[in-house]
Amino acid sequence: MRVPKAITNLVESFEKLPGVGPKTAQRLTYYLLHVPQVELDRFADSLGNLKKDTVICTICHAVDETDPCSICSDTQREQTVICVVEQPLDVLALEKNGRYHGVYHVLHGKIDPLNNIGPDEIFIRRLFTRIKSSQNGHTITELILATNPTMEGEATAMYIAKNLKSQISNLKITRIGRGLPIGADLEYADSMTLQRAMEGRSDY
Amino acid sequence: MRVPKAITNLVESFEKLPGVGPKTAQRLTYYLLHVPQVELDRFADSLGNLKKDTVICTICHAVDETDPCSICSDTQREQTVICVVEQPLDVLALEKNGRYHGVYHVLHGKIDPLNNIGPDEIFIRRLFTRIKSSQNGHTITELILATNPTMEGEATAMYIAKNLKSQISNLKITRIGRGLPIGADLEYADSMTLQRAMEGRSDY
Repeated sequence: MRVPKAITNLVESFEKLPGVGPKTAQRLTYYLLHVPQVELDRFADSLGNLKKDTVICTICHAVDETDPCSICSDTQREQTVICVVEQPLDVLALEKNGRYHGVYHVLHGKIDPLNNIGPDEIFIRRLFTRIKSSQNGHTITELILATNPTMEGEATAMYIAKNLKSQISNLKITRIGRGLPIGADLEYADSMTLQRAMEGRSDY
Repeated sequence: MRVPKAITNLVESFEKLPGVGPKTAQRLTYYLLHVPQVELDRFADSLGNLKKDTVICTICHAVDETDPCSICSDTQREQTVICVVEQPLDVLALEKNGRYHGVYHVLHGKIDPLNNIGPDEIFIRRLFTRIKSSQNGHTITELILATNPTMEGEATAMYIAKNLKSQISNLKITRIGRGLPIGADLEYADSMTLQRAMEGRSDY
């Protein structure tokens, strides 16, 4: 029995998604056979319009409906503090928390030599230009490096910090705190996390 | 920061899929922002056309491009042996195996009283009609009940067997073998499986 082309087409599209294997793709496709056509059309429209109805902010490179984005154009926010993150989803996570009132810079990736991603493949140069040009107008007072605490994230943070320190003197550069997450158990923490927790200890 | 409507729309569509939670839906959506528009359009087309380009076979209720389906219209296959399965995907699994040469009957569900699904909500009556009407022409020689070996699958098989036995006398009704799957370890098998394996033992 040959599988209908309409089914294999959709299975193939699902398979291309991260974390979706052939079995899951098949299961999702056959599930959708039982879904009303109007829902399928809505799903299809959302997919087709995803990139048409969103833009990447030319200042911070976050994904939004307007350019500049709602954060960059918000005069209530501290435009002098920039938080550097890897992905647009990281902005969402920090915004959901609601405690941060500065602006962002989304790199859209991280320095990852094993996958041939150097500083020029992500928005690092744009960050440098942004900081340098703003030094003329309202000065950037702090740059918070909030890339992930992974090998690549640390390397990216280090690269940015090193480069900027050699070029701009009076810029405060910080790295988000690393240590034990709330609710964790010392006994089960890995040695790297424990080391960071000891190094990053604060006065009580 | 409000999330762009184009993004929340797609996240909502993904969330409706089985096994996809809010986090996964968000991750998939943001992943698709990096995918070329032509791929998104292809994905959208596959979704929109899924049900338009497929039909459910009026004889066996499998999903195919033609009606009757390629299996029901295949004269090479034994049209006298019917294998009853729950879902269209089950047909695919058995066909991939390639050893079965009869035809199918897809119930599109199982008797599941807890979810208000009785015999009339799935294609059970159609199976009875199909067997009875064929008794006049070429006789059905065997009915293989291949519903899943779960509580509901067993109940469905039992319901079908009981009903048909009371109505048709000379019909061989069988249930797929249940026991230890190949590669399994007796030590770790659950008691129900062990019991079935003992009951279903065969001469050596």
